[in-house]
Amino acid sequence: MELGMIGLGRMGANMTRRLLRAGHRCVVWNKEPGPAETLAREGATAAASMADLVGRLAAPRAIWLMVPSAAVDGLVGELAPLLERGDCIIDGGNSPFENAIRHAQELAPRGIDFIDVGTSGGVWGLERGYCLMVGGAEASARRLEPIFRSLAPGRGEVAPVAAQAAGATASEGYLYCGPPGAGHFVKMVHNGIEYGIMAAYAEGFNLLQHANAGSTAARPDHAERYRYDLDLPAIAELWRRGSVISSWLLDLTATALAADPALAAFEGRVPDSGEGRWTLKAAIDTATPVPVLSAALYSRFASRGEAELAGKLLSAMRWQFGGHQEGAK
Amino acid sequence: MELGMIGLGRMGANMTRRLLRAGHRCVVWNKEPGPAETLAREGATAAASMADLVGRLAAPRAIWLMVPSAAVDGLVGELAPLLERGDCIIDGGNSPFENAIRHAQELAPRGIDFIDVGTSGGVWGLERGYCLMVGGAEASARRLEPIFRSLAPGRGEVAPVAAQAAGATASEGYLYCGPPGAGHFVKMVHNGIEYGIMAAYAEGFNLLQHANAGSTAARPDHAERYRYDLDLPAIAELWRRGSVISSWLLDLTATALAADPALAAFEGRVPDSGEGRWTLKAAIDTATPVPVLSAALYSRFASRGEAELAGKLLSAMRWQFGGHQEGAK
Amino acid sequence: MELGMIGLGRMGANMTRRLLRAGHRCVVWNKEPGPAETLAREGATAAASMADLVGRLAAPRAIWLMVPSAAVDGLVGELAPLLERGDCIIDGGNSPFENAIRHAQELAPRGIDFIDVGTSGGVWGLERGYCLMVGGAEASARRLEPIFRSLAPGRGEVAPVAAQAAGATASEGYLYCGPPGAGHFVKMVHNGIEYGIMAAYAEGFNLLQHANAGSTAARPDHAERYRYDLDLPAIAELWRRGSVISSWLLDLTATALAADPALAAFEGRVPDSGEGRWTLKAAIDTATPVPVLSAALYSRFASRGEAELAGKLLSAMRWQFGGHQEGAK
Amino acid sequence: MELGMIGLGRMGANMTRRLLRAGHRCVVWNKEPGPAETLAREGATAAASMADLVGRLAAPRAIWLMVPSAAVDGLVGELAPLLERGDCIIDGGNSPFENAIRHAQELAPRGIDFIDVGTSGGVWGLERGYCLMVGGAEASARRLEPIFRSLAPGRGEVAPVAAQAAGATASEGYLYCGPPGAGHFVKMVHNGIEYGIMAAYAEGFNLLQHANAGSTAARPDHAERYRYDLDLPAIAELWRRGSVISSWLLDLTATALAADPALAAFEGRVPDSGEGRWTLKAAIDTATPVPVLSAALYSRFASRGEAELAGKLLSAMRWQFGGHQEGAK
Repeated sequence: MELGMIGLGRMGANMTRRLLRAGHRCVVWNKEPGPAETLAREGATAAASMADLVGRLAAPRAIWLMVPSAAVDGLVGELAPLLERGDCIIDGGNSPFENAIRHAQELAPRGIDFIDVGTSGGVWGLERGYCLMVGGAEASARRLEPIFRSLAPGRGEVAPVAAQAAGATASEGYLYCGPPGAGHFVKMVHNGIEYGIMAAYAEGFNLLQHANAGSTAARPDHAERYRYDLDLPAIAELWRRGSVISSWLLDLTATALAADPALAAFEGRVPDSGEGRWTLKAAIDTATPVPVLSAALYSRFASRGEAELAGKLLSAMRWQFGGHQEGAK
Repeated sequence: MELGMIGLGRMGANMTRRLLRAGHRCVVWNKEPGPAETLAREGATAAASMADLVGRLAAPRAIWLMVPSAAVDGLVGELAPLLERGDCIIDGGNSPFENAIRHAQELAPRGIDFIDVGTSGGVWGLERGYCLMVGGAEASARRLEPIFRSLAPGRGEVAPVAAQAAGATASEGYLYCGPPGAGHFVKMVHNGIEYGIMAAYAEGFNLLQHANAGSTAARPDHAERYRYDLDLPAIAELWRRGSVISSWLLDLTATALAADPALAAFEGRVPDSGEGRWTLKAAIDTATPVPVLSAALYSRFASRGEAELAGKLLSAMRWQFGGHQEGAK
Repeated sequence: MELGMIGLGRMGANMTRRLLRAGHRCVVWNKEPGPAETLAREGATAAASMADLVGRLAAPRAIWLMVPSAAVDGLVGELAPLLERGDCIIDGGNSPFENAIRHAQELAPRGIDFIDVGTSGGVWGLERGYCLMVGGAEASARRLEPIFRSLAPGRGEVAPVAAQAAGATASEGYLYCGPPGAGHFVKMVHNGIEYGIMAAYAEGFNLLQHANAGSTAARPDHAERYRYDLDLPAIAELWRRGSVISSWLLDLTATALAADPALAAFEGRVPDSGEGRWTLKAAIDTATPVPVLSAALYSRFASRGEAELAGKLLSAMRWQFGGHQEGAK
Repeated sequence: MELGMIGLGRMGANMTRRLLRAGHRCVVWNKEPGPAETLAREGATAAASMADLVGRLAAPRAIWLMVPSAAVDGLVGELAPLLERGDCIIDGGNSPFENAIRHAQELAPRGIDFIDVGTSGGVWGLERGYCLMVGGAEASARRLEPIFRSLAPGRGEVAPVAAQAAGATASEGYLYCGPPGAGHFVKMVHNGIEYGIMAAYAEGFNLLQHANAGSTAARPDHAERYRYDLDLPAIAELWRRGSVISSWLLDLTATALAADPALAAFEGRVPDSGEGRWTLKAAIDTATPVPVLSAALYSRFASRGEAELAGKLLSAMRWQFGGHQEGAK
């Protein structure tokens, strides 16, 4: 079918490629024209403006935004007057799920649907497919299924865990999750879990590295027990086979450690892209205890120096009550 | 080659089966004779006693213990006088790594090696293979490689992340990790990570279920946002395809949720089998921060009612300073 | 001076009493008339309606709201048309600090100031005084100082830690913190800290109680070490004297434990009144790591059964990979 | 009465002074002779050796060790042969409680009691008194009461929360807690709580400082809300008066912030002295959930750079799955 794609960064460009390969017609636009020209050489139709993009699509239109969350409001505001009743706008990026609720309400009087699609897959999605979590008006979501099916990984070699009802699509790699915001809500939780799993591996490998702490200057408790020089790249590779903790993130961990066991290219100041924060806020709103997901996010904050005053204050208190100078310069 | 196997529970029996299928000769013994008789019908040699088992093996012997950690000390004490210089005892269960250090030291004067093998795979290992983490005297560990190779999953369809050095075995699913205790240390951390990953999924799915909190009696903040009735089994199935958080534990989660989305067969009082605790203690000894792994373990403790007095005390304090009665009967 | 007080629950009524005792004139109103009648007998002027209350105060008026956060919006909406330029509304309850920012902006065109006052002290405030954290337009806040000074504890027997600048009021027990919302922001963090400190004591006393775990059926690791039957009420009393952790919350803990060491009147299902949640959200917004404050809040959530599905899912995973039945009914 | 004091660091020397002022006879010894000479000028009897110290005391002797935990084993080994049946050794330092169990067992055949005393008070104890938690043989502990009573703060101005039974001593600032190790166990939990409370304040003040995050370059969510420049020293002083979170640690916090709001003398690399670690281990042994106390300890670990590899690994994973470069140099 036909799709307009706005935002041709790494994600948007590769998703367009995957759709072109599947035979869909893609009209593309990007603030900077370069990426659109590149995709035009691969079979896409490059639009000169958003209005041009709208004009090159037949109604009912589907226009997919693949832009930073902060840019969605502005684009929706510009697009809405250009569209007709029956068209739909899709936000495939990582936006707060409540924004989708708001956009859907605001666009409803115009008869335009707002579809929120959580998209997982990263730089691997072009070949591997994108896992899609869909929210919004169900009729529009159903109309978009040819697009979703082409972007998604499909059943592949992963056998479904149970016989699926007719029409069930989870095993194809996409799912209609519910009314506006449901797709981004599920994607938000997905990324919250991702933070937690990543931190579990990170803490574990850090502990493996500390297994030789007994040989270092600052002697730990039971120093005699901690004299192992463990081969972290080999252990990551090992755990990929038959262990309970094998996963795709472990595959990536093994790849990174194989390239450089010391990870010297990295500083370890870890950003966060928003969904981890939104996950915690949703958990707080709904009184859901998420100690692991929170600890994962806070470790990222602390990695960026955001605990500095807290540390100084602990040292100051220790100095006050015990005359402990260890923390002082 | 030849192996003595002591302890024929689910793990020990299935490992024996996998070895028999690979053509090894297995002499087996179990406190209760039933499992040994069963395995004898499948090709194993059933021993009448530990002494009998030792007698039916040619030197240098290899005797694998697959028993609860608490039983290892006793068995090693009984076996040691029956063995000869050059024999080895293997602890394939989940024991504290420092026990392996002690056993190795105690057996050294007799010329007997103690090999510690962390074994991951659970009930799926018979078909899927067991991921093996090996510690102890390197010569004995090398001698046992035919056993390890048969138990391990092998390379299978999982491509190594990098070209392996000649003789590298991680890609086969087993690895010599270092001196006594190194195998159990790596397995301990593996299980610590497992607790963390499991908790990340558990918290995430719990949050998905709370997505309808806005429709329940106790209204959350921003109640209007939380009105989704999400299909947890379908979401678990979905995330198995192309998402960043696909993993074997997610496969199992999907299987469990497909069987019963309410998980009604479970109470949610979660035991812990020791390695999570040991992981934390090793982290504490070596000053390694593990907030995620700890939160995972403490959630298990709390699930079993171990926070009861803590909760009562919070309510009592609230009553004292604010006259708040909400927590009182 | 003169003050209108709306909301005569335990906090509002006692604050009025403290102001009356200090010689201020208080005009009071409450949705249910009973408390106003009671206070009228103690010297307050009972108003028949909000309009009546406004009418009985001379401009520039100061009207203090001591009501649940959810009721503030409605009251401000009703009061604003009744007031004159130069009047001010004070929210002394526990409201999200961003509401104060919004109220101040909305009332600015009318020339009405919105003052946010965080009030700590609970049921003890009548005698002990209330610790006041003030935000909003500085001129109005300064005008209200006679009220603040009477409500606050004053210097009492607590010596200031340093010589105070002239006009510094922190040592009197009230402080102008900054523009609209600053008072409630500081109070929010105060309560976040309160959650953390309470949880630290709660966890510690819970651990003291577990010191006899070695004598119970489910034997812990190192059972022989854990055979102490500790006297929790005596320990709480003890720590009040000369220990590093003496505090007012410890005084309350000692009182509660002295009344009943088993705290049998409490279930341990601990509510949260909002500020803990807002503290976490502010920390997330500003990338401030708050692992301790978060763990404290999540323990409250879990105490109310909100982790149920998470626990079931952990048990289900354990059943899937290991055939572990321990968690099943 | 008469006491031998071994170890004349800041704690031991000041405790000796407090005992001398109360009229006790103190025979003192220190590895380096300087401190003993100083105390001799203040009324103590300086011994030339441990044997000399023993010789200068009349049986039944009481010898108090105030030395680092690591030195206790050696001193007990040297002292034991010099002592007689009926004498006792007191460990007043911060030692693992299980050591007291072991020492008591080892000394029992000689008829020597081992008394473990947890001592809180730090550099303020000389004037303020020391809070004492006592374990060991009850008869010896009772015999030492004149010493405990002089070291302890006494009732002072802190009213007991309840009428005390005759002979109850908690309100005097010392308490017999139970058999060997009970004193150090209670002190261990005391310090675990101390870590938690300190971290609660540290996180809270850190969040207060982040209240201006909206004005900095890296803009947070809801930047418009976070524009407060809060006066941390004044807020600390304020909370000391009538707030729910007033405490002695807050007094110290206020003192430190008053001296320098930026705490520039401190780096924020926070050591830990052992009891926090032991608290966690005891909690793990007894399956007591202590998420707050753990988070407090792990923040200290992380403040010392112990999370470095974990951070690098998170960045490496993000690079692998998303091509995210933010964490890379």
